Amino acid sequence: MAEPNNKELPEVIVLGIPWFLKFYGQQFSQNFKLLKPWESSLPLEQFITTHAQSVKAMLCSGGTRVNPSFLSQFPSLRVIVTTSAGLNHMDLSECRRLGISVANAGTIFSEDVADCAVGLLIDVLRKITAADGFVRNGLWPMNVVYPLSSKVGGRKVGLVGLGSIGLKVAKRLEAFGCIISYQSRKKKPVPYPFYPDVHQLATKCDVLVICCALTDQTRHLINKEVLLALGKEGIIINIARGPIINEMELVQCLMQGEIAGAGLDVFENEPNVPEELLSLDNVVLSPHVAYLTEESFQDLYELMSGNLEAFFFNKPLLSPVLDD
Amino acid sequence: MAEPNNKELPEVIVLGIPWFLKFYGQQFSQNFKLLKPWESSLPLEQFITTHAQSVKAMLCSGGTRVNPSFLSQFPSLRVIVTTSAGLNHMDLSECRRLGISVANAGTIFSEDVADCAVGLLIDVLRKITAADGFVRNGLWPMNVVYPLSSKVGGRKVGLVGLGSIGLKVAKRLEAFGCIISYQSRKKKPVPYPFYPDVHQLATKCDVLVICCALTDQTRHLINKEVLLALGKEGIIINIARGPIINEMELVQCLMQGEIAGAGLDVFENEPNVPEELLSLDNVVLSPHVAYLTEESFQDLYELMSGNLEAFFFNKPLLSPVLDD
Repeated sequence: MAEPNNKELPEVIVLGIPWFLKFYGQQFSQNFKLLKPWESSLPLEQFITTHAQSVKAMLCSGGTRVNPSFLSQFPSLRVIVTTSAGLNHMDLSECRRLGISVANAGTIFSEDVADCAVGLLIDVLRKITAADGFVRNGLWPMNVVYPLSSKVGGRKVGLVGLGSIGLKVAKRLEAFGCIISYQSRKKKPVPYPFYPDVHQLATKCDVLVICCALTDQTRHLINKEVLLALGKEGIIINIARGPIINEMELVQCLMQGEIAGAGLDVFENEPNVPEELLSLDNVVLSPHVAYLTEESFQDLYELMSGNLEAFFFNKPLLSPVLDD
Repeated sequence: MAEPNNKELPEVIVLGIPWFLKFYGQQFSQNFKLLKPWESSLPLEQFITTHAQSVKAMLCSGGTRVNPSFLSQFPSLRVIVTTSAGLNHMDLSECRRLGISVANAGTIFSEDVADCAVGLLIDVLRKITAADGFVRNGLWPMNVVYPLSSKVGGRKVGLVGLGSIGLKVAKRLEAFGCIISYQSRKKKPVPYPFYPDVHQLATKCDVLVICCALTDQTRHLINKEVLLALGKEGIIINIARGPIINEMELVQCLMQGEIAGAGLDVFENEPNVPEELLSLDNVVLSPHVAYLTEESFQDLYELMSGNLEAFFFNKPLLSPVLDD
């Protein structure tokens, strides 16, 4: 793959403008001829029509909706490599039916996302972002009484989903003295109490950390009833996908004091964040960046590049989701 | 101590307006007759003169400077209970010479302070407070590229001081995959590499977490040379005492990019924070509240109250510093 002649490089259509190309685009272009609609003078639809008949490989991000009508435009497509860990944007059974292999980010974001979940929880409990605003607004010398924050240790934390991220959140929070339990489709070989039902988990916990995949089953899994079960001292952390929570009901519960606070990296209608949240000081808001570190982007570049090289060399994908 | 008649309750002079009295003052007053200068019409000096001859017990906070001339005003004083864990405000040898017992907050704040140290470090590395500002200022939908943050795991963290707080910081950060080493007056029975010299520690580390006591030996221990040794990717967390860092040199290093960021709960001249820090987005600032949770205040009330009861019942203090 070291040939410098761009014409001989294998073609990869890039949809959704994966962020990491802003950092690793040049390195990527040494091995692949990237077909980038945003650099073309053609409108997106026409750009796709121009390349869709022949292109075999696609690099996309979590924002690209890969459904049957989308796929029908690419009769030669054999592999899709998505920069996301989540696969809720893709119709996997249609990919399988068409014989298209899929690779994703696997678990390379798990540590960073788990770190962020814990960071958001400490931040909400210990009011760190609020404290920073207090100091920057000059309130400290004015003898304003700073509100008491809440201890991390001893808190009963319920993990909604116990995959790669959930396990890492559990490990970190145990070191703080938190008491872990979890909800999942099935019981796992871990020492934490298991609740098959999220409402039941909420009644037993002070904190819910959402770390499950977004599927038809988990959409709006966290609704008003679950939030009321969590209770007035309850805190929600979401580093998974926005639509797992009924956002309208969450906003109502936060505004009416039905729960105590939230740390949210994801939202239902990104990049739009409900206006009401912007003025609340018991929430910490983050623009879907829990996975986003220099180190994870280096890893992502290597994994995406490695998957595409593997495909063009007829080798097994490095992080296959379906590999027919 | 259950007598309701205030005149029969033992007298305790309260100096420095300990914050927790705002929350537990009423409960405290059921067991002790609190002499509170801030509720008196007398000026502080006159108030002290009025009570100083007879009062045997004093409750003070970290802001009360207990030096020989201060102590010479209280000939009957036999016990000082300070709400602080740090003792840098007190002349302990003079207390010992005068036969005054001293009790402090012991280690009851250690967990909360360690949690805050970790929270500040995650916040600086993962830019959580900055992310919150980004979202609240409406920049997300405007396609502004959010800067990459830095991974917590794998970071080499040097603890300056390895007492009760340092050990708890180490335990927490190990769960994130950080690599711990420490500087201390002497080597401790722990598995972490020991450096007797803080400059040497800084050359080996990406992060310094200050968790030692403020003494004549540690004042300005962290100076420009140490910060330059830490380097351009370096981060400083201080949850101990402001004057352990040469703040002017820290501000210069932050402004000139000689280190990457800082999370500061304490400052040299509290409650005044250097103006230059207020506009930097690579620092997280907090108004000396790392110890401040509902839970720690409940514990503090019980410990302070228990120490005073022990004194008046001629029992050993619960958290003695000197108990002659």
